[in-house]
Amino acid sequence: MHARFHVPDAERTGDVVALPHEEAQHLIRVLRLKVGAAVRVFNGRGAAFDAVVSAVTKAGAQVRIGAGCEAAAEAHVAVTLAQAVLKGDKMDEVVRDAVMMGVAAIQPMVTTRSEVTLASIDRGHRQARWQRIAVSSAKQCGRAVVPAILEPRAFEAVAASLADMTLRGPGLMFVEPSSSADALSLADLDATPPRETTVMVGPEGGWTPEEIERASTVGRLVTLGSRTLRADAMALVALTALFTLWREL
Amino acid sequence: MHARFHVPDAERTGDVVALPHEEAQHLIRVLRLKVGAAVRVFNGRGAAFDAVVSAVTKAGAQVRIGAGCEAAAEAHVAVTLAQAVLKGDKMDEVVRDAVMMGVAAIQPMVTTRSEVTLASIDRGHRQARWQRIAVSSAKQCGRAVVPAILEPRAFEAVAASLADMTLRGPGLMFVEPSSSADALSLADLDATPPRETTVMVGPEGGWTPEEIERASTVGRLVTLGSRTLRADAMALVALTALFTLWREL
Repeated sequence: MHARFHVPDAERTGDVVALPHEEAQHLIRVLRLKVGAAVRVFNGRGAAFDAVVSAVTKAGAQVRIGAGCEAAAEAHVAVTLAQAVLKGDKMDEVVRDAVMMGVAAIQPMVTTRSEVTLASIDRGHRQARWQRIAVSSAKQCGRAVVPAILEPRAFEAVAASLADMTLRGPGLMFVEPSSSADALSLADLDATPPRETTVMVGPEGGWTPEEIERASTVGRLVTLGSRTLRADAMALVALTALFTLWREL
Repeated sequence: MHARFHVPDAERTGDVVALPHEEAQHLIRVLRLKVGAAVRVFNGRGAAFDAVVSAVTKAGAQVRIGAGCEAAAEAHVAVTLAQAVLKGDKMDEVVRDAVMMGVAAIQPMVTTRSEVTLASIDRGHRQARWQRIAVSSAKQCGRAVVPAILEPRAFEAVAASLADMTLRGPGLMFVEPSSSADALSLADLDATPPRETTVMVGPEGGWTPEEIERASTVGRLVTLGSRTLRADAMALVALTALFTLWREL
């Protein structure tokens, strides 16, 4: 299979476009491709093309865009994963997994029990890092779409944005089996997919009772079986379960 | 919540039983519990109890078994995960995840494209290591059952054991979207759960065409959507999707 590159400027067959710096370095230094090599490119917004390397210099690389080609199909449901930021590099893994499973966007979130702050996320340039991981995961899994990593926000700001359900459909907050008597099991959910939804996943220490109460006013509480799932596995499990219910897998 | 310990000898309320060495060390050195402390124990075969620490010495720890208590519900389908052994510590993560998702047993497997051999698995005492990881994962997720880690075997031995489908129902081999035109999507599978089944997941380099052909004679080929899933995420995704289909989540 030909190497795939993320080339945001790839729009039309016949165009000659430059690769972004990181992608060019990968093409030149790691894969050591030469002029004439066949590759594939995708623009991150859903279009993928065959392409041929047309220039390689110290400064960068260019490709000539060929015919459009197929990429992995996108889900019919636009899911935004609102994930409480996890400790260490666990959040990197969640971003990678969520992109692989087909989310439309990721909303990093700071909750009461998060062990990171919005300030530390900002200082660490984490949003840009997660966006690079999203590109890398899209390359690996064959998607032509790179999900947006949204500006990190506090839980309450995310909950407030979900309040207008007429626009976006109810959000789904995943909770531990013991944390709410009102939580639905997956089998209780409507198998008819919404057009879009927001899936909320909590931090290592879980949601506070106040957060669960707040979420129940702007969406539904959902629990997955009777076992306690690790925080860093919850997003992958929740997305897989939902996409199975909606017959996207 | 009280600390949980794996105590294979826990059978009847009123008995006084010794903890296995590792569990006793955890109780004494890490948690520093004293005589009289309330704990929970499970025997790995489905029974869980309240218990009280009744002796702590340099040599070990004993508990007095109290009333039976609830543990996480077990799935109605007995799933054996036949997983091609992955590189490095990726297999540890698969064992941890599969126990958390509720498998009944794990069959480590060496396939044509595996980068490990049965001899190196044996030399590295990997089966015993995976069994310890299964205990640890059962403790974390609240199960009272510790799934067996079966003796590692070659792919062909596993396939041959699946040939008698009258006993065990067909196996399910998960394959990449592009690797077989005959693969079913999850929505094509019967939503009525079998009593037991074997789920086969391949190594980083995928299955050979011969392995796929062989599996199609002793089970069904299944593919999950159109995206390429990482080998180390495949078991978690496949188990979650199947348990969702069978309404276990």
